[in-house]
Amino acid sequence: MFLLLDEFVLPQGFRAAATACGLKPSGALDLALLSATVPCSAAGIFTTNRVKAAPVLYDQGVLARNSSAICAVITNAGCANACTGERGMESARHTAALVAEGLGCEPDAVLVLSTGVIGRHLDMQKMAQGIALLTSAPDAPGGVQAVPRAIMTTDTRPKVARLELPFANGTVAIAGFCKGAGMIHPNMATMLAIVTTDAVLAPDLLNRALRAAADKSFNRISVDGDTSTNDTLLLLASGASGVAIGEAEFPAFLAALTDVCIALAKQIVRDGEGATRLVEIVVSGAQDDHEAHVVANSIARSPLVKTAVHGGDPNWGRVLCAAGYSGADIDQTRMSLAFGPTDAPIILVESGLPVEADLKAAAAHLREDPVCIRLDLGRGDGACTVWTCDFSREYVEINAHYTT
Amino acid sequence: MFLLLDEFVLPQGFRAAATACGLKPSGALDLALLSATVPCSAAGIFTTNRVKAAPVLYDQGVLARNSSAICAVITNAGCANACTGERGMESARHTAALVAEGLGCEPDAVLVLSTGVIGRHLDMQKMAQGIALLTSAPDAPGGVQAVPRAIMTTDTRPKVARLELPFANGTVAIAGFCKGAGMIHPNMATMLAIVTTDAVLAPDLLNRALRAAADKSFNRISVDGDTSTNDTLLLLASGASGVAIGEAEFPAFLAALTDVCIALAKQIVRDGEGATRLVEIVVSGAQDDHEAHVVANSIARSPLVKTAVHGGDPNWGRVLCAAGYSGADIDQTRMSLAFGPTDAPIILVESGLPVEADLKAAAAHLREDPVCIRLDLGRGDGACTVWTCDFSREYVEINAHYTT
Repeated sequence: MFLLLDEFVLPQGFRAAATACGLKPSGALDLALLSATVPCSAAGIFTTNRVKAAPVLYDQGVLARNSSAICAVITNAGCANACTGERGMESARHTAALVAEGLGCEPDAVLVLSTGVIGRHLDMQKMAQGIALLTSAPDAPGGVQAVPRAIMTTDTRPKVARLELPFANGTVAIAGFCKGAGMIHPNMATMLAIVTTDAVLAPDLLNRALRAAADKSFNRISVDGDTSTNDTLLLLASGASGVAIGEAEFPAFLAALTDVCIALAKQIVRDGEGATRLVEIVVSGAQDDHEAHVVANSIARSPLVKTAVHGGDPNWGRVLCAAGYSGADIDQTRMSLAFGPTDAPIILVESGLPVEADLKAAAAHLREDPVCIRLDLGRGDGACTVWTCDFSREYVEINAHYTT
Repeated sequence: MFLLLDEFVLPQGFRAAATACGLKPSGALDLALLSATVPCSAAGIFTTNRVKAAPVLYDQGVLARNSSAICAVITNAGCANACTGERGMESARHTAALVAEGLGCEPDAVLVLSTGVIGRHLDMQKMAQGIALLTSAPDAPGGVQAVPRAIMTTDTRPKVARLELPFANGTVAIAGFCKGAGMIHPNMATMLAIVTTDAVLAPDLLNRALRAAADKSFNRISVDGDTSTNDTLLLLASGASGVAIGEAEFPAFLAALTDVCIALAKQIVRDGEGATRLVEIVVSGAQDDHEAHVVANSIARSPLVKTAVHGGDPNWGRVLCAAGYSGADIDQTRMSLAFGPTDAPIILVESGLPVEADLKAAAAHLREDPVCIRLDLGRGDGACTVWTCDFSREYVEINAHYTT
């Protein structure tokens, strides 16, 4: 599922184009238009930050009025259009109107996404020129490869995922692209993700699927509620495959959608600034799944755990410490800890005490990609997996070799 | 109050000695003995981490049995004695017994502190040799300067503070020393602080004073509950000045104690790994003080705010964003933001919108020490000040110049 960008194609019914309209001073691609040849069902999940960017407020309004006939998503990088007040809302409205005019659809069929610096106004002259170009050729050659690049800010590479799902009466494609936060804690910058499918789904079912898939993917790379002013995840269904997803097909569709979302989410953490490897944190034996999630997040956010991983220092005490301050009702005498894959675990702690462990093997595993850290709390059946990345460079010079 | 170490002296009734017993592979000072010539009232505040080190559990037991006649505090660096089970408890007990034997006091008159690597056992042979040396000369010349050094781990400098408080019937001295976390989030490593006074205070009043002072100092450099396995703050009162603190004298004593604790706490953040300056975050206009604390902590923990400060990038949107995801009930249209001191504020945001600001002056202020960030939420009278440091070096190369 980790595709080369060259292999990336959209599901039936979607087309894409991107350009550089001058919002990024570097002259790089900064404006992306995803449009549909047929009106799409749509669902969205938006930032829970109390400070919401204008495009977030605007899109929430659009989807409340119209979630069954979305025709386009316009995304700009280089300016977040956040903390911009009524003028920012007007910029979002105007952006949608320009796209609608160019494509010949209703303004309420257009969603608007922005990412970049907070507190600056969108340059609507540049936007208008860019939108005119994109709407005149919404299916330009190479557009599908250009769009994942155009939405990048400090990302080092475009992020795409695609999957095909066979049903009795045809095959459904699910394809998505996203941009990550250019930082170690992706929850603190703008994450934008757009997932498309050619399946036939009503908006309410689409919404249910998106929320369930996000809970197992994008919500597992970030502490709940710690989100930027612009975070947005969209799912559009064109129905162009003719394959309808009802209750019978829903579990298979949801599983595939979740896989695509996990693939995108992992790419976001893997591309965290300075990251050199993906770290999977599996917490089991919690009293419930929520408690497992709280503990896993606490470990995933610990700079000390992340620097130890980077330095290949099997400093397992930091993992137990992060679990201990997570707020969960931990019993230190019941905790077990292992590094490595399930079929070849390197056991470090049992019943809260260090065991005679092969610390060389543990250190070697921390240099592999992905790294896997497994903590069992010994209390119940709750479990959760979250993903993060290592902390590298100068920060590591100080922390990674503390015990070696 | 930011004393040179050479000027540091303990209040009457206390003496200090330190040695290198070999726990630090570097051969640096690693064992410190603070002892009293008279039994002291004592109060302690310990980590809320569910994973507690043996010395924390041990000291909680001692203070529950005896808070009116403490004679010594022995502190080792190089080994945290955490996640060490029953053997770890036995090491703490044995350490106290060795000190008691050497000084000729009861074992329950001795408190034990440890800092260093988690999951390793204390080398009791080295401890015994070191304790024998220290108890044979508990008031060695230079001891008071050596003790703040001996408890350091990755700290770059010793941290001390001292204040004299005149009353009608005499003068009281309050003097403390501490070690910080060698990392940017001090809440994630071991903070040890010992404050001494020669005032006469009963344990219950001492305990009340310590909790109130900690709430305004050490608890303002760390998110509540995010604490290491070993965090400890102790306050000992020898009474040697003969000045009794009753209810009438309590407010003045508490104010002085708070000043000493703030001076120590600020030194901990100022010495965060890679830190180049102190950052003071003042949140006002909250619905209550607790809400102000939550918002201020969210800003203080944001790597993006801290890198912007380091880079001198007046990227104020990051401050509003961190307030927005703090969990507090923020109204973005009521927020006002300024950098700089109260008497010369550089106003950046009013009613949630950017104002025409002197961004050059704002950038220049971010290069000063200390930096001050003032956010008013426009909702009520709640206020809180917290302290943090900037994020420097490689992490900054990536984040600090994002908008410039």
